[in-house]
Amino acid sequence: MISDRERAAFEAGIKLGALYHQWVGTPVSRESAGSLEHAIENAHIQQPYVTEISVDLDREAMVPNSFGYSELAGLMLDVEMTVRVNQATCHVSLSREGEYPMMRIEWIDEDSEVSSS
Amino acid sequence: MISDRERAAFEAGIKLGALYHQWVGTPVSRESAGSLEHAIENAHIQQPYVTEISVDLDREAMVPNSFGYSELAGLMLDVEMTVRVNQATCHVSLSREGEYPMMRIEWIDEDSEVSSS
Amino acid sequence: MISDRERAAFEAGIKLGALYHQWVGTPVSRESAGSLEHAIENAHIQQPYVTEISVDLDREAMVPNSFGYSELAGLMLDVEMTVRVNQATCHVSLSREGEYPMMRIEWIDEDSEVSSS
Amino acid sequence: MISDRERAAFEAGIKLGALYHQWVGTPVSRESAGSLEHAIENAHIQQPYVTEISVDLDREAMVPNSFGYSELAGLMLDVEMTVRVNQATCHVSLSREGEYPMMRIEWIDEDSEVSSS
Repeated sequence: MISDRERAAFEAGIKLGALYHQWVGTPVSRESAGSLEHAIENAHIQQPYVTEISVDLDREAMVPNSFGYSELAGLMLDVEMTVRVNQATCHVSLSREGEYPMMRIEWIDEDSEVSSS
Repeated sequence: MISDRERAAFEAGIKLGALYHQWVGTPVSRESAGSLEHAIENAHIQQPYVTEISVDLDREAMVPNSFGYSELAGLMLDVEMTVRVNQATCHVSLSREGEYPMMRIEWIDEDSEVSSS
Repeated sequence: MISDRERAAFEAGIKLGALYHQWVGTPVSRESAGSLEHAIENAHIQQPYVTEISVDLDREAMVPNSFGYSELAGLMLDVEMTVRVNQATCHVSLSREGEYPMMRIEWIDEDSEVSSS
Repeated sequence: MISDRERAAFEAGIKLGALYHQWVGTPVSRESAGSLEHAIENAHIQQPYVTEISVDLDREAMVPNSFGYSELAGLMLDVEMTVRVNQATCHVSLSREGEYPMMRIEWIDEDSEVSSS
């Protein structure tokens, strides 16, 4: 048996992995960062079970190359995402931890219904 | 509290999402499919917690374009993967379900230790 | 010797190839298409030698999957781009031609300077 | 009028741009680098007009993260590629130049046929 909590954790993982590998490599600069943040949020909020997402790109880390722009790197991503499967809600994050872009489950919650079912 | 089973499900999700969005779009044909399968397996077996992975690409779905090749599409992917976090093992799959590339938890297992801890 | 026209053609090719493989696979729907168009334009206008870019996504081709969204496919992309290297300007396009996302040089122009230099 | 040399330069650019943005982000280590090199070569040799390709990944640059692997970065790529359009042959490269992954036309050659056709 797979619980709702486990399914929510699985679905949240799918979305973080997808986001990371879809967007890394995109040309980006401090000027275009805002537009890219919105595009990432608008893309992934549509995926199944995602109820909230916020994306912050670290502008400090966008060191311009000799042509004046950077490429989106995993370490620039700060993402918070909430996924809901049936009664279970899973909140996850992607953020820099030293030199690793760490993905974490922040919490999982389950509706505690006083129900007769 | 997050259980090992939940963490295993999360880690498995990350890897399936990553794999999908990393490789979709790669030029591929029936001739190069084998080489691509190995490269995908070799890439993702290195990721944290992955213990087994097998990738089958659907050669029937590789309809050559006017230049004689295709692009890897999500519906061509048949993936089985096993992830282990502490005592919990999670086995997941990605395979075509109608027109959707469905990711599923096949099973989660936990070592049932007769332990006094 | 490589001419400015040849270099402009090369640079334009790089950008179309990059754009295609960076963005294909992104979750998209008719609602999010506008945000994605802007993000693509804002990303690639920053790349060296690009002077103009316009991106149109074919909303008709965005047939929702069972979860209500699509994935950006090469055949949805209609791109016009202008690249300038020294005196040469190269205008290229990416658009659907039957079942192939065709990239073409539309024209190359070179400043005909009446100059004593 | 677009010359064969210009078209060859354009097609070569497309392939380098595509290669870069398709593969950057792939999990890789010194152990899996060989398998990835072959997969990249096998994928892109299939694309229109490509006649030769060789891919070398810089193993020195693959500094393992805390989980023992790296991600393919643009600066790890050393690519040589030959593209032929009609009578014109264009040889291009992608290699590290300081902190920038530089793409260059190395030479373009055109068959000088003493022909009566």
